[in-house]
Amino acid sequence: MSSKSKTMFIFLLQFLLFIIPSDQYHPLDSLTPDEFTQVRTIVTKTYPCSSNIHNLTFQYVGLEEPTKPLVLSWLNNTTTTNPPRQAFVMARIDRETHELIVDLSKQSIVSDQVYNGYGYPPLTIEDQVNADKLPYAYPPFVASMAKRGLKLEEVICESSSVGWYGEETKKNDKKRIVNVLCFYLDGTVNIYMRPIEGITLTVDVEEMKIIGYEDRDIVTVPKAHGTDYRESEMKPPFRPPLNGITVVQPDGPSFTVDGRIIRWADWEFHLSFDARAGLIISLASIFDLEIQMYRQVVYKAHVSELFVPYMDPTKDWYYRTFLDAGEYGYGLSTLPLEPFRDCPANAVFMDVYFAGQDGLPVKMPNGFCIFERYAGDVMWRHTEVVPGKPVREVRQEVSLVVRNVATVGNYDYINDWEFLQSGTIKVKVGLTGTLEVKGTKYTHTDQIEEEVYGTLLSENTIGVNHDHFLSYRIDLDVDGDANSFVKSKMQTTRVTNQRSPRKSYWKVDSQTAKTESDARIKLGLETPANLLFVNPNRKTRLGNPIGYRLIPGAVVGPLLSDDDYSQMRAAFTKYNVWVTRYNQSEKWAGGLYAYQSHGDDTLAAWSDRNRSIENEDIVLWYTLGFHHEPYQEDFPVMPTLSGGFELRPSNFFESNPVLKVKQPKDISGLVAPH
Amino acid sequence: MSSKSKTMFIFLLQFLLFIIPSDQYHPLDSLTPDEFTQVRTIVTKTYPCSSNIHNLTFQYVGLEEPTKPLVLSWLNNTTTTNPPRQAFVMARIDRETHELIVDLSKQSIVSDQVYNGYGYPPLTIEDQVNADKLPYAYPPFVASMAKRGLKLEEVICESSSVGWYGEETKKNDKKRIVNVLCFYLDGTVNIYMRPIEGITLTVDVEEMKIIGYEDRDIVTVPKAHGTDYRESEMKPPFRPPLNGITVVQPDGPSFTVDGRIIRWADWEFHLSFDARAGLIISLASIFDLEIQMYRQVVYKAHVSELFVPYMDPTKDWYYRTFLDAGEYGYGLSTLPLEPFRDCPANAVFMDVYFAGQDGLPVKMPNGFCIFERYAGDVMWRHTEVVPGKPVREVRQEVSLVVRNVATVGNYDYINDWEFLQSGTIKVKVGLTGTLEVKGTKYTHTDQIEEEVYGTLLSENTIGVNHDHFLSYRIDLDVDGDANSFVKSKMQTTRVTNQRSPRKSYWKVDSQTAKTESDARIKLGLETPANLLFVNPNRKTRLGNPIGYRLIPGAVVGPLLSDDDYSQMRAAFTKYNVWVTRYNQSEKWAGGLYAYQSHGDDTLAAWSDRNRSIENEDIVLWYTLGFHHEPYQEDFPVMPTLSGGFELRPSNFFESNPVLKVKQPKDISGLVAPH
Repeated sequence: MSSKSKTMFIFLLQFLLFIIPSDQYHPLDSLTPDEFTQVRTIVTKTYPCSSNIHNLTFQYVGLEEPTKPLVLSWLNNTTTTNPPRQAFVMARIDRETHELIVDLSKQSIVSDQVYNGYGYPPLTIEDQVNADKLPYAYPPFVASMAKRGLKLEEVICESSSVGWYGEETKKNDKKRIVNVLCFYLDGTVNIYMRPIEGITLTVDVEEMKIIGYEDRDIVTVPKAHGTDYRESEMKPPFRPPLNGITVVQPDGPSFTVDGRIIRWADWEFHLSFDARAGLIISLASIFDLEIQMYRQVVYKAHVSELFVPYMDPTKDWYYRTFLDAGEYGYGLSTLPLEPFRDCPANAVFMDVYFAGQDGLPVKMPNGFCIFERYAGDVMWRHTEVVPGKPVREVRQEVSLVVRNVATVGNYDYINDWEFLQSGTIKVKVGLTGTLEVKGTKYTHTDQIEEEVYGTLLSENTIGVNHDHFLSYRIDLDVDGDANSFVKSKMQTTRVTNQRSPRKSYWKVDSQTAKTESDARIKLGLETPANLLFVNPNRKTRLGNPIGYRLIPGAVVGPLLSDDDYSQMRAAFTKYNVWVTRYNQSEKWAGGLYAYQSHGDDTLAAWSDRNRSIENEDIVLWYTLGFHHEPYQEDFPVMPTLSGGFELRPSNFFESNPVLKVKQPKDISGLVAPH
Repeated sequence: MSSKSKTMFIFLLQFLLFIIPSDQYHPLDSLTPDEFTQVRTIVTKTYPCSSNIHNLTFQYVGLEEPTKPLVLSWLNNTTTTNPPRQAFVMARIDRETHELIVDLSKQSIVSDQVYNGYGYPPLTIEDQVNADKLPYAYPPFVASMAKRGLKLEEVICESSSVGWYGEETKKNDKKRIVNVLCFYLDGTVNIYMRPIEGITLTVDVEEMKIIGYEDRDIVTVPKAHGTDYRESEMKPPFRPPLNGITVVQPDGPSFTVDGRIIRWADWEFHLSFDARAGLIISLASIFDLEIQMYRQVVYKAHVSELFVPYMDPTKDWYYRTFLDAGEYGYGLSTLPLEPFRDCPANAVFMDVYFAGQDGLPVKMPNGFCIFERYAGDVMWRHTEVVPGKPVREVRQEVSLVVRNVATVGNYDYINDWEFLQSGTIKVKVGLTGTLEVKGTKYTHTDQIEEEVYGTLLSENTIGVNHDHFLSYRIDLDVDGDANSFVKSKMQTTRVTNQRSPRKSYWKVDSQTAKTESDARIKLGLETPANLLFVNPNRKTRLGNPIGYRLIPGAVVGPLLSDDDYSQMRAAFTKYNVWVTRYNQSEKWAGGLYAYQSHGDDTLAAWSDRNRSIENEDIVLWYTLGFHHEPYQEDFPVMPTLSGGFELRPSNFFESNPVLKVKQPKDISGLVAPH
């Protein structure tokens, strides 16, 4: 769901136009506050809106990335010119969607195209905030609240995307629509536990007016009691407090931050923020001790799209099939992290910036944190006894985590990118926050004789069944950008040689995917395989192909039918793994214009082109999912549930790359006695 | 593989016979050193061995657990008598296997049965150590070493179990057999990287003599260079050291240890050690804040068996299909944990004890560690803005970990049982140590024209493909011992109501398993489902069945054919989930007598009885697995690879049980500046 929550955190920073020469930027740096301001100035010069000549809103402003060859040439110092510094803007101008490319060196719009396809850019926060205000002045809604005996001043509303359900769209009747959902405070801050059901209120966001209203029936609003989650509102008994525990680094963190380049242990990578993707890792390379050189692993990695369909087909709920990144902006949903709680004591924080609807920069303080993690785990160990030489060698697992939290309305997604000294990258998402619940007359399961599409969590409260799917776009460049995708299938093999007492074993049958259709994988349903991204042009000294492998976590596939509209729009969920040929424009698994999209521009459509992917620049798309049947423990706020996957070097190094990690010095002086 | 490694750690403690009254023990406490001594005294009274009247070896000595009703009565104070304190002994006496029950109160053997079925008790460490010495005095072996130009004093040998491959066993020809594998030191301590191939040396352990010897061919022994993993032996360049990092609890740990009862946060459980299972969690209960009572979750949980089959059917390797718990003792493989490295600075350590082959107690110092983990993660959070009341509530995830490491020869298994404040139990195993590799003539993959059954990891070194399967036996008693197993299947459902624009959704179809055959699950291959253990006799206030659910991790199934002998012996790997009716004698998924077993007494056989499991005392068996295709990074020591699963309360509590966890106090004074 949407969040207007952040209005309170927004500090509009209107910098004086102070142009830093662009060669001080890394070509992948996010736009700076003054670059946002410049973009706004340039665009409003062409489309002045102050005098009501144009109705202009900035739906998205972000870096227009230089092409990959340009960035790689710049990195390798094979070019003397800096890549151009440009912005990509999706604007609504006089009810049309414009795709603008603004060049900051030339201080001009270098491309301006009107988009005429299906779908719209993401909602702005202002789109939502403004729509959320409309009900209060809408007499039928006011009457509905009165009829229910609800105090209008305790009602709070939030915009919800509406999806697409096969409606034919007339060319001149394009409408950006939201449904406004309302909740009741009156004694709690946990609005999501107090939905006001039975009403559909539809807003045309362009006109910013209510275009549809239906008050079908009155459903009990669940009670406030027991819904609040603030410590200040809790009554005893409390849980006995644990003794304090913290992480200490007496000499400070081991990583350095140079602009937006992070260096830690053998890793180097670039960190950036995008209003749509949120956290972006780029140019991750690892230093190879043996050859004393950095070697590429990842060109760019980020969350591409989310799909959160609810499993209630009734009038009140059927349209809740959210594409959180494309509809609301996964980056726009980033909220400040709380030191000592969201990230440990040794974390370093970073602010991030995005453009408001007016194009002006907005600062989100503490949007990212970076910290070293020591969870008490072991990187490697062995105990052995050889005569006279007892051996026990143990190395602690210390890793680096980059984190942000995207609060998309009720849900909080904790996004972790963890870099291990061994070369492994672990990607994790933790789901917490509150459920989106449905009001009901029931107070006990014995009363329920119809389908309620979820679990009775509390009196008058149904936690509606739903899914979460996250699509990660990972442009792997394993030791160079020409890579192949290899399925090392483990095949049961009968022993035909009569001299062996064994009847079977498994052997590895490595198959290189030739085209995109060879690389669509429903995990769990196929022959077990190691899924490798190899550089077929490089070998280890022993002749093994140099690679990284994908280690999936728990596996979830879609359950909606293929012909369901929301499933068509989120067709990226159909496979857990897709590999496509690199194409700079293919970034968003649900399409660039996901809002009210028709599913014609998705990862599934691109993959259907069935391009060759052998020894090419290729991109991994990994779909991670959860089927969420709620339980009472998820009420009124959910304990975190996590999922993830790993990318692990596999014949990338000649041998264990952490063999020569020394035991860290003991810092036992700080340790409490026990 | 076996480990005689621990001989050096063994401190034989021969206590004076000092009998502590048994009512000072918890009925599930492991046998104490003086109880081991008592058992030995009692048994040797009946079977005196000093005068060579009897050939007696103690293959296993452990607690003979009181029956579950007795323990539960004792716990609930419904009995005034203490459960009897008894030991279960598997002894070889005059070449027969005796199952003895020794009563420590009565100071007598109360049951003595000769076992005449297939298979043998686990090997003792002494079985292995003695067998390992035989080659040095065996002229053909000495000649083989000379022929290879190997120095005998640099040769080191280890016993390997031999499995069973369909050989008919004559009643009077029962032999406990090991194959002795030899390796070459000469410049390294990493013996597993220097196998001496081409030789099969077979030992009758009862006779303790070599009964078979074959020297087929000479295979290059891989070089020592690059195999050592000791920091002291490393040459520059080293990895640049990270700054120190540690966990600090200024007020000490929050848990208490009362005997072997651990209390932490809302958890209480009993911790014990067994030579076969290793770490055992019993009587885990969680305090329910709302009703101010402890509620049962787990009666007993431990690793039941491991299966590690190698995928090389040749003469040298085919028999390497290890059942680590039943053949070697997963507990016997426990070695001391290193403070600050194996467990963090805030850990508390515990010694464990087992019986040597002579029945005398052996102490393994620091066999377990217990510590609170704070990895920088979030237990729950949400950010919300309601007018005038910005809200951000975040709680840190602090958990309790109990750990041991079982080093079964080359492999180190890090076993973690993690208790979360939310009621979740996470079970994790980390695999590290060294591979079991095969010598080869090849130094580059281009030379390889035959099947080598693995990966060329280094010159002359093949990492042989293999699997690891762990079977966890978890006797769940969710809020009482009568439980049912419910599959809440998520079924795609077509929308037939024409009034909904949706075409599909999923709904939950809960099916209660009636008998054991309903509860065998190959994960990933069936309809997605939540797998719940519910108490059908208790409901939440809202009427939901009280339960815990199993959240699997990555899923692996067996690839050996069903008719393969080792697969028959390890048939427990066929399903990821089994649920059986509680039977105190069904503890070991590969059978009590796993050594050279024929697979007639396994979890699969018990499940075939197809007992009713609805509203009964039931046991979950979870199979976790890894298909391990080695990569060069695994050489010469492997970075840890982890797997696991969760048990999570699901309508067990009325609402989120960690809602009332207070923010811990900040202890920022200790934090280094950054």
